[in-house]
Amino acid sequence: MPRTFLATLQFDGTRFLGWQRQREGRTVQQEVETVLARLAGQPVRVHAAGRTDAGVHALGLGVSVTLSDRWTPDALRRALNALLPGDCFVLAIREARSGFHARKSALERQYRYRLGTDGEARSPFRRPFEWARAGALEPALLDRAAAALVGEHDFGAFAVKIATKPHTRCELRRARWTSRPDGTGFDFEVAANRFLHHMVRILVATMVDVAAGRRPAKDVERLLARDPLVRASAPAPPQGLYFMKVVYPESWFTFPEAA
Amino acid sequence: MPRTFLATLQFDGTRFLGWQRQREGRTVQQEVETVLARLAGQPVRVHAAGRTDAGVHALGLGVSVTLSDRWTPDALRRALNALLPGDCFVLAIREARSGFHARKSALERQYRYRLGTDGEARSPFRRPFEWARAGALEPALLDRAAAALVGEHDFGAFAVKIATKPHTRCELRRARWTSRPDGTGFDFEVAANRFLHHMVRILVATMVDVAAGRRPAKDVERLLARDPLVRASAPAPPQGLYFMKVVYPESWFTFPEAA
Repeated sequence: MPRTFLATLQFDGTRFLGWQRQREGRTVQQEVETVLARLAGQPVRVHAAGRTDAGVHALGLGVSVTLSDRWTPDALRRALNALLPGDCFVLAIREARSGFHARKSALERQYRYRLGTDGEARSPFRRPFEWARAGALEPALLDRAAAALVGEHDFGAFAVKIATKPHTRCELRRARWTSRPDGTGFDFEVAANRFLHHMVRILVATMVDVAAGRRPAKDVERLLARDPLVRASAPAPPQGLYFMKVVYPESWFTFPEAA
Repeated sequence: MPRTFLATLQFDGTRFLGWQRQREGRTVQQEVETVLARLAGQPVRVHAAGRTDAGVHALGLGVSVTLSDRWTPDALRRALNALLPGDCFVLAIREARSGFHARKSALERQYRYRLGTDGEARSPFRRPFEWARAGALEPALLDRAAAALVGEHDFGAFAVKIATKPHTRCELRRARWTSRPDGTGFDFEVAANRFLHHMVRILVATMVDVAAGRRPAKDVERLLARDPLVRASAPAPPQGLYFMKVVYPESWFTFPEAA
């Protein structure tokens, strides 16, 4: 009997063209599938909870794979971490019931966006991991904009259009900016049932433009209302974005007692 | 009149063969001197407070340079940061009196060593920036070992011998391990008038072996006493080490009132 696994993956997106396998260039999917093929002795296909763009990081991307029954979660985790390149790491592996699919079974995705606003945000230790953006921001305007996003809305104005997507409604369950206690910047946490292409980065850029006084606060509501006279800001840079977590129904991971 | 400057430099050591210019390979000194030569229109020589090895990081390395009087500290900082590669960054520049030398004028150097002991220390976001070392350590033994180091001692047993160094005595002014509140590891902070080659990494490795129960606690004292029957541990990996700060007499940076 084949076994299905959920791997929780971390990667530093700096030197990847994103998750999804492409004809040319280094992607996370390709690295993971190459290692798995070596372990399984045959081609292996994996599925991720979401695609990430070039340069975007992951602290907890859900990835599903089905392998032969000789693998246990712990053996698979060790084997993967021994063979994966240093910028890719398996945090945990759980066994799932047959039929589990990292994308289709997901209930909620969570992202974080890191924004550095002090003079040291360009330091080599922070620059690959956040958006270094000089200039003052009004925290109350960030909070107001984030609060306006929560709920079920048409987020089509905050996305790069992809023809194959049937609709652009998303249920944003949480959206919150936190000002760092050390004054080095702001972090945005967001959770939704689904996200559209480039959506978090476009949301962030638009809110930041509002908080910098570069566009009216009302633009957020007008964009949610699909006002054709307003356009969202261009996406914030990828290196500030982190895929944090996927939520799945726990029932996928509970098994009947062995007979 | 030429002007002398102290630049405080940060760099991610991952892709450098260390500070010092070498015949082949990428070094920080070479990158800094290349940019300065471009700015000055002629070859420029810089001096650093200390050499760092391949893979070692810096959060505040002192570097001195003398340029023509058309440069102000702020203009020089901006020009350097515009031209330096992304893994190298000038945090601050101060003007110094003529004769100032980043190495010879230094009173004290400070280093930090970061040690990750949890399962996530190998994550791509931490692995390039600390020593990921599984296995339990006894904090009381780390503390005891660090306390034994403080004072003026012959640290020759904790160094790679360099023939040109006249003696191996150093005055260790502070040496302290801190257990991280989140349980992810330990950090070692150390300050001294001078450090020998590889000294911090050998000190760390020896203390960690003691705290792991792999060698007797008394070895530290025996090594300080140059007991010929005891050898220090092999250096801890470079990516955990950070050059933090140099202390200079403030008088180098005070100028008489302009007439």
